Amino acid sequence: MAMSDEDITSSLSEPDQSTKGFAFQQTMLRIKDPKVSLDFYTRVMGMRLLQKFHFPEMQFSLYFLGFDEAASIPSEFDERTKWLCAQKATLELTHNWGSESDPNTKYHNGNSEPKGFGHIGFSVPDVDKACERFEKLGVTFVKKPNDGKMKGLAFVQDPDGYWIEILNGENLVKITKEFAS
Amino acid sequence: MAMSDEDITSSLSEPDQSTKGFAFQQTMLRIKDPKVSLDFYTRVMGMRLLQKFHFPEMQFSLYFLGFDEAASIPSEFDERTKWLCAQKATLELTHNWGSESDPNTKYHNGNSEPKGFGHIGFSVPDVDKACERFEKLGVTFVKKPNDGKMKGLAFVQDPDGYWIEILNGENLVKITKEFAS
Repeated sequence: MAMSDEDITSSLSEPDQSTKGFAFQQTMLRIKDPKVSLDFYTRVMGMRLLQKFHFPEMQFSLYFLGFDEAASIPSEFDERTKWLCAQKATLELTHNWGSESDPNTKYHNGNSEPKGFGHIGFSVPDVDKACERFEKLGVTFVKKPNDGKMKGLAFVQDPDGYWIEILNGENLVKITKEFAS
Repeated sequence: MAMSDEDITSSLSEPDQSTKGFAFQQTMLRIKDPKVSLDFYTRVMGMRLLQKFHFPEMQFSLYFLGFDEAASIPSEFDERTKWLCAQKATLELTHNWGSESDPNTKYHNGNSEPKGFGHIGFSVPDVDKACERFEKLGVTFVKKPNDGKMKGLAFVQDPDGYWIEILNGENLVKITKEFAS
């Protein structure tokens, strides 16, 4: 390793006061077909559609999803937009109009060359149960929970091929006890 | 557009009971140099390092960051791992050992061909103030708040070139009132 833990720790300061109120609000992925992706993220993955925006001049739409309770989502449009921006961990799906019927639109998931973005990850109460259900629903797996060295975590793919890690705290403790320091 | 809002709405069901407890826990990005990225995400962006794992056999390390309060982070290692998995909106940075000194390692940010992943986004209390500070700190901008049509939102780049949207609820209401339906 190029550095010790001490090097890292000492390089980290308390966040600057001027960053107070910053929140990790969104992760944006381009999608080919909103019908297919919204079905996947709601029906299969359990998210809710929180807000959507159509930009006719620029020919694209944005769909924001999250795991928020339905009762917490304001019904008035602008109130919902403001509320959305105050939520952590939303998934923003960008649809460039027409991509759903364009055979040349295929998005890159970042895990083959050129690499970069890796995945999003959902924690679940029970990885095996969640994955049994995904299998029944025909979801594509990159790694099933018992594949490879790291038992108890899985990777599935969304309709565009983006990877979603399926993880759980108890299982990650076991894996890191065995392989990590 | 290929579909009406009604089509979308009617395709969305209440989340299945078997997805209860699912949470959007992480977004993973590969990074070239943890020293540089950890400094950026803590000092500049105001995040905290929540947990780190070194996997010597597989020659990589994982760094998890979030906007959580220091007092909420358990000090015991395994407890911290479990706690980490219960948090929403963590940023997982993956460092493949040696990349920091390998001139050939340059990660792809998803916004040039082949496109896919777009960005992560941080909501902030005041976009202009946040961006003035970023500018003083030498952060690279893709879009300043007053550039382009959509005033009041900005994009900056992290040390690997990944885009971070800087957004705010009030500003997004104005933008969507002007351009979106």
